[in-house]
Amino acid sequence: MGKFKIHDALGLRAGKNFRLADVDPAVTPGFSGSKADLAARFARYDEELYELQERLFANGRAHEDGAPSLLVVLQGMDTSGKGGAIRNVFSVFDPQGTKTVGFGKPTDEELAHDFLWRIRKHDPRPGQIVAFDRSHYEDVLIQRVHKWVDEDEVDRRFAAIRDYEQELAGRSVKILKIFLHISPQFQKENLLERTEREDKYWKYDPSDIEERGYWDEYMAAYEDAIRRTDEIWAPWYVLPTDNKKYARMALKFLMVDALRHLELSWPAPDFDPEQERQRILDAE
Amino acid sequence: MGKFKIHDALGLRAGKNFRLADVDPAVTPGFSGSKADLAARFARYDEELYELQERLFANGRAHEDGAPSLLVVLQGMDTSGKGGAIRNVFSVFDPQGTKTVGFGKPTDEELAHDFLWRIRKHDPRPGQIVAFDRSHYEDVLIQRVHKWVDEDEVDRRFAAIRDYEQELAGRSVKILKIFLHISPQFQKENLLERTEREDKYWKYDPSDIEERGYWDEYMAAYEDAIRRTDEIWAPWYVLPTDNKKYARMALKFLMVDALRHLELSWPAPDFDPEQERQRILDAE
Repeated sequence: MGKFKIHDALGLRAGKNFRLADVDPAVTPGFSGSKADLAARFARYDEELYELQERLFANGRAHEDGAPSLLVVLQGMDTSGKGGAIRNVFSVFDPQGTKTVGFGKPTDEELAHDFLWRIRKHDPRPGQIVAFDRSHYEDVLIQRVHKWVDEDEVDRRFAAIRDYEQELAGRSVKILKIFLHISPQFQKENLLERTEREDKYWKYDPSDIEERGYWDEYMAAYEDAIRRTDEIWAPWYVLPTDNKKYARMALKFLMVDALRHLELSWPAPDFDPEQERQRILDAE
Repeated sequence: MGKFKIHDALGLRAGKNFRLADVDPAVTPGFSGSKADLAARFARYDEELYELQERLFANGRAHEDGAPSLLVVLQGMDTSGKGGAIRNVFSVFDPQGTKTVGFGKPTDEELAHDFLWRIRKHDPRPGQIVAFDRSHYEDVLIQRVHKWVDEDEVDRRFAAIRDYEQELAGRSVKILKIFLHISPQFQKENLLERTEREDKYWKYDPSDIEERGYWDEYMAAYEDAIRRTDEIWAPWYVLPTDNKKYARMALKFLMVDALRHLELSWPAPDFDPEQERQRILDAE
């Protein structure tokens, strides 16, 4: 029954020695589970996200190439709620300053290029917040689990991912990588729901059950990917997600924290406010 | 003090004989102005928009080329609140199924192409909802007002716009064109605010005052554009917008109405729900 504090969310940072087995998907560190507490936090974070994003966007308009941006990479097993989490967090943002990209099965054209080709198309512009629903990490997860690529290629991809993310960071792109960590039991409930409700059928794919059979291999691949790509400039956070609302709260907080650290002020006017005020009053 | 009814919003439809002088930007047809009424309507429309968009998106996923889509074109003078209206309405949607595009001053590359080239890049995909913040109409508004194009070219552009929109409609794109109609007095207040608040400076452009000098020419150009391009498949609605909340409510209602008319059901499953349910229960 504690209060959710800054260090609880930041404590979800993975790091180089991260072990996935240490994270129980059902825990909610620092959170009592009270509905009133949750609603109050959502309201507070939403208010702050609203202003921080507008400030970021304003800086993008004013400074163009010089302004920072934010890239949020969401990964997780089927039914972990990546899309819902993005929707929930992004609803407070001005859509003109954000972009959400879902990466599904690569097209033939995409397969004919390097695996980062389709990713690079969506590099954040200055002032923009971009969310990836799945990402370049699929190329070292599903492809590795199914052995569609050999381990040498996996190594090459990890090196390419590290270079890519470092390059982004060098262009003032703040990166947050999030793994929504659910249990197999939780996934089972979610999959069942998709076969039981008319408004959920469209989300169900029979091949999800085959993927589920590779659970342990996926967990091993996630752990390795997280350990090999967690960097100061591209940190991984592993959010326990059997309680979806908890995970969303933690995600909102992490985004608040990332945006706060940009220490953005409102752009200075490139005109004389008092003079322009007078021009408006005199006009017409 | 009446209730806002369906016909009040639909009564804002322009039509071929539309006269802009008939619309007072300050009226709020059918709306009493009560805060409680407004909040209740926003909540109701938001709930319906949420479900209708999900249904549309699900159909896009399930049927791909066969599914309809929605294009909302927003036009209005500076400070009429186009961006804010989009933000307000789109906050309930799943960002993966929507796109917002702002059309500013054309780039050199865009100017080297036909005026519709940059627009066509953003044609809605099946199941998608797209908002244009300014649009191809700028090419028969600002350009005409400033006489950057002659009247023959204006005629050619109107013909191209009509063809383009008819082509979209033929591909099941539902089109809503919205003019957010404000008074010069209301704009003056808004411009003043932008010179008085640190968090608004970035929205102010000294050239807005010069544009304001062409108010009557803009109104004439809007009226003509609306009359010449209002069609059953691409209707114009002129929303009195001196009361921003009223305009947003009307916009929400018009989108509810447009989406309802698609009469979308949830896609039928392409699997046997009972059999899949059993597979999930048996797995692992």
